[in-house]
Amino acid sequence: MLGLMMDKPLNIADILEYAAVYNTDAQIVTRQVEGGIHRYHYADALRRSRRLANALQRLGVEQGDRIATLAWNTYRHFELYYAISGMGAITHTINPRLFPEQIVYIINHAEDRLLFVDLSFLPLLEAIKDHLSVLKGIVVMTDDAHMPANAALPGLLCYEDLIADEAEEFAWPQLDERTAAGLCYTSGTTGNPKGVLYSHRSTVLHAISSCRASALNLGPMSRVLPVVPMFHVCAWGVPYSAPVAGAGIVFPGAGMDGASLYELIDGEKVTSMLGVPTVWLNLLNHLDAIKGNLDSVQDVVIGGAAAPRTMMDRFQDDYGVFPIHAWGMTELSPMGTVCARTPELASADRHERARLQAKQGRAVFGVEMRIVNDAGEPLPHDGRTFGRLLVRGPWVASAYYRSEETSAFQDGWFDTGDVSTIDPQGYMQIVDRSKDVIKSGGEWISSIELENLTVGHSAVLEACVVGIPHPKWDERPLLLVVRKPGVQVGAEELLDYLKDKVAKWWLPDAVVFVESLPHTATGKLLKTQVRAQFANHYLTTA
Amino acid sequence: MLGLMMDKPLNIADILEYAAVYNTDAQIVTRQVEGGIHRYHYADALRRSRRLANALQRLGVEQGDRIATLAWNTYRHFELYYAISGMGAITHTINPRLFPEQIVYIINHAEDRLLFVDLSFLPLLEAIKDHLSVLKGIVVMTDDAHMPANAALPGLLCYEDLIADEAEEFAWPQLDERTAAGLCYTSGTTGNPKGVLYSHRSTVLHAISSCRASALNLGPMSRVLPVVPMFHVCAWGVPYSAPVAGAGIVFPGAGMDGASLYELIDGEKVTSMLGVPTVWLNLLNHLDAIKGNLDSVQDVVIGGAAAPRTMMDRFQDDYGVFPIHAWGMTELSPMGTVCARTPELASADRHERARLQAKQGRAVFGVEMRIVNDAGEPLPHDGRTFGRLLVRGPWVASAYYRSEETSAFQDGWFDTGDVSTIDPQGYMQIVDRSKDVIKSGGEWISSIELENLTVGHSAVLEACVVGIPHPKWDERPLLLVVRKPGVQVGAEELLDYLKDKVAKWWLPDAVVFVESLPHTATGKLLKTQVRAQFANHYLTTA
Repeated sequence: MLGLMMDKPLNIADILEYAAVYNTDAQIVTRQVEGGIHRYHYADALRRSRRLANALQRLGVEQGDRIATLAWNTYRHFELYYAISGMGAITHTINPRLFPEQIVYIINHAEDRLLFVDLSFLPLLEAIKDHLSVLKGIVVMTDDAHMPANAALPGLLCYEDLIADEAEEFAWPQLDERTAAGLCYTSGTTGNPKGVLYSHRSTVLHAISSCRASALNLGPMSRVLPVVPMFHVCAWGVPYSAPVAGAGIVFPGAGMDGASLYELIDGEKVTSMLGVPTVWLNLLNHLDAIKGNLDSVQDVVIGGAAAPRTMMDRFQDDYGVFPIHAWGMTELSPMGTVCARTPELASADRHERARLQAKQGRAVFGVEMRIVNDAGEPLPHDGRTFGRLLVRGPWVASAYYRSEETSAFQDGWFDTGDVSTIDPQGYMQIVDRSKDVIKSGGEWISSIELENLTVGHSAVLEACVVGIPHPKWDERPLLLVVRKPGVQVGAEELLDYLKDKVAKWWLPDAVVFVESLPHTATGKLLKTQVRAQFANHYLTTA
Repeated sequence: MLGLMMDKPLNIADILEYAAVYNTDAQIVTRQVEGGIHRYHYADALRRSRRLANALQRLGVEQGDRIATLAWNTYRHFELYYAISGMGAITHTINPRLFPEQIVYIINHAEDRLLFVDLSFLPLLEAIKDHLSVLKGIVVMTDDAHMPANAALPGLLCYEDLIADEAEEFAWPQLDERTAAGLCYTSGTTGNPKGVLYSHRSTVLHAISSCRASALNLGPMSRVLPVVPMFHVCAWGVPYSAPVAGAGIVFPGAGMDGASLYELIDGEKVTSMLGVPTVWLNLLNHLDAIKGNLDSVQDVVIGGAAAPRTMMDRFQDDYGVFPIHAWGMTELSPMGTVCARTPELASADRHERARLQAKQGRAVFGVEMRIVNDAGEPLPHDGRTFGRLLVRGPWVASAYYRSEETSAFQDGWFDTGDVSTIDPQGYMQIVDRSKDVIKSGGEWISSIELENLTVGHSAVLEACVVGIPHPKWDERPLLLVVRKPGVQVGAEELLDYLKDKVAKWWLPDAVVFVESLPHTATGKLLKTQVRAQFANHYLTTA
């Protein structure tokens, strides 16, 4: 028997329509790419999004078309999110930090019809323009006064001109909530980028769930600064969750350095901010230098990579800001786990707090998790046993866009490619990537933990641990080290340093000093390349 | 084009499965009907719910069966919510405050298969037992030691016996999320009660959205006391939203008086509590009498009837508790609007705060609202214009259960039967019921506002205003007054008292003093009866 409730689909346009009527106190503030601060309200954003939707329709955009953006976090990018998805087309955000050939691949693979671009990224576009025959038009996200005079790209359109004469009314179609709404490519360390195709349902559910206190903790009192970019996993969903929460938004534009961020945080009385560890390191260094404060800030959400303990401590002890460790993936829209404020954490001593906050936290409601061994058998949640982390839920990908790759999607679960522990309280901690974990005699060794410990040595600039084939143990760890300039350290000293920090059988079998290590465009260690290079490295233990 | 996200339906059982793994800090505390305090955790509740689901299956319960409860807010009632809906049957909560003949009607109309009953309600059941032939069994929600020795009801089962030997494993079926999950009858002032049939989808969406900061403001730091009963609109959804939020729950059992509530609030360090104005009046009076405090409490949610200003002020000024005015209906699962903490409210002066908090607040995300005139045309959101309040959304009813009545469901909207204003900031204020509003010369007069003003007079115990047919103005207001015992007051004095408080044309055309006024079982004024009685009342103005 079915219930007798309204069959109202979850549609993204409803979020902005709601915010325009009810979030009347909340401002959307942007550091503009052209310079200066722009301010308006949700009702203004709605009117301009509707004008933009009319303009897109005039340009021939149809439901299901992919419309690309190559842009910073700004109010115009926000309008694009709602106009494109709202009319039934697909917002395809492109990460400008990828290699140019990856960007070419992505645009052509998605068959993007139009591309909206910030002024900053025109040179990038000019360099690849001959490979983008699929595009029917490029719109520069600026006004007439700032349009480039002599662009190498022909026929550029101007965003403000485009919407200037359009009507402020637009009848958003009522879409099947499973309709595709957004597209984001994830760049692995191997192969071409893979597209994740979000739906209206997944996006709205993610927005409602992720603003709760046990997730991003956003509400009508919040002014949230998403430093995490809208060009990658939709700024962790903030452009959708903030309006649902009733929060104001502060968009940093292109200013990701410590000084620019601090100016915004201080000037706009930001209460909550989200970003990756590198961004916060820059901010903390700037704060220390100028003796600034974070008095308005309550929470800092740290994700994208593991947050170092020193960073957690500096935020909490020096600046009175609660650090929220979080973990997600493009395939998870991206929220997976959050290490939120709980009574347990609030009453923990310094040591216990650090122990808990080192974990990536608990699953957000809507995400189910399990860890399994290589045979797919569930492993215990004891906080010690490593396992492949599988997830499922309404905002988890079920396949990649136009891709034959299905290995990560088995029996209704998505294999994250991460290896983690889960403890009896449900706290998950990432231990390694499954392709990087070292399988030694049937047991697993975390390459990441060895690397983190090694960089704790004062002479080490960067470290990389990979598994090397071994006749007896299958694999054994090899440690590669880049020394700090002008500093000497030997293998014996490093192994000695690690000795009392890990189990004996975790100790690397060899140490090799190198000048540099290979990285992907987004800064990840390219371990595939390291493994290939050292596959035949002679291990003295073999 | 559809998105490529997992097709994972929203199912109620997933809430408890989630809470058992992740809400490990949170306790569920119950003042037991048998006396004493019971405590356990979500994981315990899950295990017992699974045992209960096994027991239900053993008793022959099938998907779609209606299983009734006649019970207080307790952990056993909580287990029933999850076991019944989780296995695909329908949790039918019955309001014991209805007239016995209404309860008989409801059980037979729903064709309930089993009934779970608290000890307190056995006498009620004994009185109507001859009319309940549809029931196949009655389970008393207690343990063996407390089972009644000589019940007039044959074959009573005992809850704890029922689940004692069942397995703790139960494979919840994965249900189409539109599957019926809950049933609650609403008692109007006319006709038989009407059933609202909630689905898994509506219940889960309502739970996720209603715990946000702009709604009930629940999170992992909350210990929430739902005084509002689980036998009516699922205690405003708290048994679902608290576990989603990560909150602890304090169930008051049968103790709704001020002293019993205070004991729980103080002893269990309650942070948030929900109930109707009458309950809070009793609590405040008790607090004043014993010079108690509400130091642990942050929020009190007041709904079910308009919260008087004095109550708001006492909570806020005397006890430092933020009063959250809210409005909902059985047909809305029930959350419609909430007057949440906002920067505007936080910085308002006393007068402005009172003005805003007198309103029922803004729509919760997921609920759309409009006000229309009798022709169905939208009216302005100017905070002054009255209109029929229409709502729609995924947790709004689309029809009544086994009912031909469709007049409230038109063009995809539900007509709430309320008349309200909506102001430019989106704040909604209930002005009257649409059948009670007085239509005078094309303009609308609020009977409720006239009544509220009249009871402000020191001589008045209760007031009732109804529209009486009038040859020139269609209707004019008639004021009925019950005087306080031993106090004298005349019509002239009352009209004089109202004179500078309302527009001249709002003043009642006549005042009649009566000994008492008729009420429904749940305490609402029976204006239909008053109107019938005074339909031919001679108005001097006619």
